[in-house]
Amino acid sequence: MSLTALFAAGDGVFAEYDAPLRAAFARAGLDVTVVTQAAPDTVDYIIYTPSSPLQDFAPFTRCKAVLSLWAGVERIVGNPTLTQPLARMVDPSLTQGMIEYVTGHVLRYHLALDRPATEWVPVVPPLAQDRKVGFLGLGALGRACAVAQAAIGFDVAGWSRTPREVAGVQCHSGADGLAAVLERSDILVTLLPDTPATTNILNATTLAQMPRGAYVINPGRGTLIDDAALLSALDQGQIAAATLDVFRTEPLPADHAYWHHPRVTVTPHIAAATRAETASDVIAANIARVQAGQGLLHEVSRAAGY
Amino acid sequence: MSLTALFAAGDGVFAEYDAPLRAAFARAGLDVTVVTQAAPDTVDYIIYTPSSPLQDFAPFTRCKAVLSLWAGVERIVGNPTLTQPLARMVDPSLTQGMIEYVTGHVLRYHLALDRPATEWVPVVPPLAQDRKVGFLGLGALGRACAVAQAAIGFDVAGWSRTPREVAGVQCHSGADGLAAVLERSDILVTLLPDTPATTNILNATTLAQMPRGAYVINPGRGTLIDDAALLSALDQGQIAAATLDVFRTEPLPADHAYWHHPRVTVTPHIAAATRAETASDVIAANIARVQAGQGLLHEVSRAAGY
Repeated sequence: MSLTALFAAGDGVFAEYDAPLRAAFARAGLDVTVVTQAAPDTVDYIIYTPSSPLQDFAPFTRCKAVLSLWAGVERIVGNPTLTQPLARMVDPSLTQGMIEYVTGHVLRYHLALDRPATEWVPVVPPLAQDRKVGFLGLGALGRACAVAQAAIGFDVAGWSRTPREVAGVQCHSGADGLAAVLERSDILVTLLPDTPATTNILNATTLAQMPRGAYVINPGRGTLIDDAALLSALDQGQIAAATLDVFRTEPLPADHAYWHHPRVTVTPHIAAATRAETASDVIAANIARVQAGQGLLHEVSRAAGY
Repeated sequence: MSLTALFAAGDGVFAEYDAPLRAAFARAGLDVTVVTQAAPDTVDYIIYTPSSPLQDFAPFTRCKAVLSLWAGVERIVGNPTLTQPLARMVDPSLTQGMIEYVTGHVLRYHLALDRPATEWVPVVPPLAQDRKVGFLGLGALGRACAVAQAAIGFDVAGWSRTPREVAGVQCHSGADGLAAVLERSDILVTLLPDTPATTNILNATTLAQMPRGAYVINPGRGTLIDDAALLSALDQGQIAAATLDVFRTEPLPADHAYWHHPRVTVTPHIAAATRAETASDVIAANIARVQAGQGLLHEVSRAAGY
């Protein structure tokens, strides 16, 4: 059966995905024609980035699913014209990149790599087993990163909105659970989705619940952090240092205090990238599932927002 | 049976080991009295560091084994008076510390953590699967560190004098094998013992066999590297940067070029430390083995030198 997929993304993305999508559909045995323009009632699937000019999904009456190339769908999840099933991207390469980023920055703080010796004063760092690492968010990314830190030997706990079980990780949930994770985390990694419930989850109150001199790593969403509260906690020494990959405004404006703070490391939203080759296989797998009458992988709950 | 162990180490070490050794012997059900002075013919075991003033082992006619608290025994292995069996330390905490150090510095180079962004120019690093990490030395430490890098996802190869097999690691040995590992290593970790055969194993010739712009991490022994050749390779860009934990002269003299080179990171022999608690358990286990008529763990081969 011949299918039509409309590729509706921000500028320049199609060139990156054209060949990988063809290859992925061929591998999956799917006959899919990918187009960048089409009459709405001829479109079977929409391959999408939330940066696309396409914002009115109502005319796409035949469309069986909207397949996001991005993991974060907060810009589109509330669109009232989007009545078709929506899948977010969970790309194994993106997860792998996130594991590498988080592991690198956790070890950077653990081993004090920012403070190279300038004279011979041997100070042996504690072992990972004596360092407590906490994760806010135990979704696909948080879980994978927490497991990787536990594998290295860190003492790992995690918090999620709804109860989770992750092997090797002390799991907490709910309001009490949040405090329990904050209070013990020498190094805290935030990997929550952007929802009304997670906005400013790190604020003056919750930062104060952390051990004095703790580290914060945020590769999740810029909205998770009350920026003024974090800067104040850094200046007071409550937080020793922070590494931030995501921001309320991106690119982060050149005059933002984060660029200039001596204990803030800015990375320009590079913690993890969707890679066209692996993401195309996820798109193909999802189309194959729907065609076979199975449910979407990584389908977004409109109620939860992710 | 009551045993006497002579603790013969450099200054100040006994205070660190006194209580942990007592506890370890109690756990092992051994009746061992640890002394710092004794008539040689009353000594059953010598607990030793190569920095000890004790260098004449001939009078210790009853001594069943010399048990080093150090992993590196090159300062003592050639001592002609040392006819008793000699064990080097393989401390699980030392191995764990080495894994953390090596993983941290490999990821530091992989993710370019030394070059934090100062403006918003997103550059996503390659994935670990596209980064080749090489190990010279696949002994207890090299093997453990190689396996840890493979677990993160790096493309790992290793070289050892005699053939080895390590799961997930491409293993090479002999002269041809050395070149094979050097030629492919974007990041090279040297974890060989100090023997006549390993002296200056990284020299002008072998550094030139590496890919241009490669990184070197040496937590093994200072003698593994021809220092002048490494500095020259750094200045020519053949080696992009080096992290060195061990040196021919320690402490590294304040006027040494390594302290001042912009692409050399000096760590003051802190990659891995023997920790008294875990090392004491290794000492107790070895005494229990000898008393039971079993062979020493980690016995040093005088021929191989380690």
